[in-house]
Amino acid sequence: MLAVTILGNNSAIPAFGRHPTAQAVITLEQTFLVDCGEGTQMQMNNYKIRHSRVNHIFISHLHGDHYFGLIGLLTTMGLLGRKVELHLYAPPQLIDVINLQFKVSDSHLPYQLHFHPLNGDDLLFEDKKIRISSFKVFHRIDCWGFLFHEKRFLRKIDAQKANRYNIPLSFYENLHRGEDYLTPGNTLIPNAELTVEGPHATSYAYCADTGYNELVSEKVRGVDVMYHEATYLHEFEDRAHARFHSTSKQAAMVAQKAGAKRLLLGHFSSKYEELDDFKTEACTIFPQTELAIEGVTYLI
Amino acid sequence: MLAVTILGNNSAIPAFGRHPTAQAVITLEQTFLVDCGEGTQMQMNNYKIRHSRVNHIFISHLHGDHYFGLIGLLTTMGLLGRKVELHLYAPPQLIDVINLQFKVSDSHLPYQLHFHPLNGDDLLFEDKKIRISSFKVFHRIDCWGFLFHEKRFLRKIDAQKANRYNIPLSFYENLHRGEDYLTPGNTLIPNAELTVEGPHATSYAYCADTGYNELVSEKVRGVDVMYHEATYLHEFEDRAHARFHSTSKQAAMVAQKAGAKRLLLGHFSSKYEELDDFKTEACTIFPQTELAIEGVTYLI
Repeated sequence: MLAVTILGNNSAIPAFGRHPTAQAVITLEQTFLVDCGEGTQMQMNNYKIRHSRVNHIFISHLHGDHYFGLIGLLTTMGLLGRKVELHLYAPPQLIDVINLQFKVSDSHLPYQLHFHPLNGDDLLFEDKKIRISSFKVFHRIDCWGFLFHEKRFLRKIDAQKANRYNIPLSFYENLHRGEDYLTPGNTLIPNAELTVEGPHATSYAYCADTGYNELVSEKVRGVDVMYHEATYLHEFEDRAHARFHSTSKQAAMVAQKAGAKRLLLGHFSSKYEELDDFKTEACTIFPQTELAIEGVTYLI
Repeated sequence: MLAVTILGNNSAIPAFGRHPTAQAVITLEQTFLVDCGEGTQMQMNNYKIRHSRVNHIFISHLHGDHYFGLIGLLTTMGLLGRKVELHLYAPPQLIDVINLQFKVSDSHLPYQLHFHPLNGDDLLFEDKKIRISSFKVFHRIDCWGFLFHEKRFLRKIDAQKANRYNIPLSFYENLHRGEDYLTPGNTLIPNAELTVEGPHATSYAYCADTGYNELVSEKVRGVDVMYHEATYLHEFEDRAHARFHSTSKQAAMVAQKAGAKRLLLGHFSSKYEELDDFKTEACTIFPQTELAIEGVTYLI
């Protein structure tokens, strides 16, 4: 199970009650925080994102609307007595900013903060259930997207059929992995007779702030849900280009080229009070488009 | 006219919808921002505090709940195209933090930021209407309070009486300042015959984060409205002492000793969902106590 809760969907200037970028990527086991604009800790309170589930935070780049809320969140976690270590994946210079802020306040965290500087397109985290990797995108300063891949689920055993063939419990693990069964009488029972496919292992791509570039689609090919920024409508294509941002139409083109199943749009400019046009514009190219709305959880 | 709008009334951990410290001290001419916890720019949007009226920002100390929102506000002012210079009065190290944050984002402000490092008990700003000074308070790290003093208003001329004595317009300035008038026939008309007192020049003291200390009352003697922190109720006197904070009762004692006319309590701990007890406790010592509530403007 993968889901993403939107905590902030606006670009740099907060407006119309919309906040700068932050997302909580939720699995059954834990919550991964992606970007942390100013006010993220309040948004986490508002939308019941529990600190104790957050052990890994990913920061795409060092424009303030993507990290100015981080120091406050780290501090609050400390004041609440956190002891569990926290992993932070971010552009290298961020650790200097954090260290300086703790130094001038004469403060220390009561938990260990492991800093992992982002580099290229790398595997950042992996456990039995999920794999998280970074990929470079195309912004004015170094900027990374993040790809969340659930690991492939095991096949499910059809208990009735397994009983019929008297398959020993000790062989069940092999069945889960897709092996055929050879009976004591040397009859081969194909795995497909005994099992059904496990649930679909889903994937989510967070494409961060980026100018339009088809290379992004290659990096997230076949993803289930792709979040792509759409700072402007296409009438401001030139402005988007000049500022290394994308239009709604461009986001849709990347999603189509990537073969994504669904597209989630965000990072809306404060120029726009109403957001419906972003969806309308993208849907002309990629109909499976949704707007990233704060407080809404999107199942992947 | 002096007034203060509360933008954040909570201590370090945001809770129950309450924000970290920030206040807007409002005059007819401009708005002075005092402290700037995370989310202040959103709170300014919520409560219609216009950026264009803010030319001076005062930061009491470098615990994050008093300044983590500053960098976001400075950035937003820049993105909105501000050209007018801005004055920042803050502990010396803050400029290093700001400079580093702009460096790592490869950003520059389109307006001039004048940084004024706080030092001791100093005059910070003065114009025809107001005088603003700093005073040291007693916190774990260097911390300053701020005192806003409207300048004495001129006496108002009673036009009817002035006409009766045929006083020339060229002498009106002298009357405003309280001088008596000598007629061409050498009769002395006392100023009190010709004028009435101007409106009361008010004063506001922001006592920042401080442990209980009677010296604070000396620094703000006779002030109209004194804001004093009350992080805890008096049952937690020991904790307040250990953390260089005050209780509601202690704030009231300082207000009483200072001869303040009114007391405004804030910086409430996230332990407390309900705040009524803060007022009740303080009122047993100093009845003219009010709670600083976010979004409320208190006329001074």
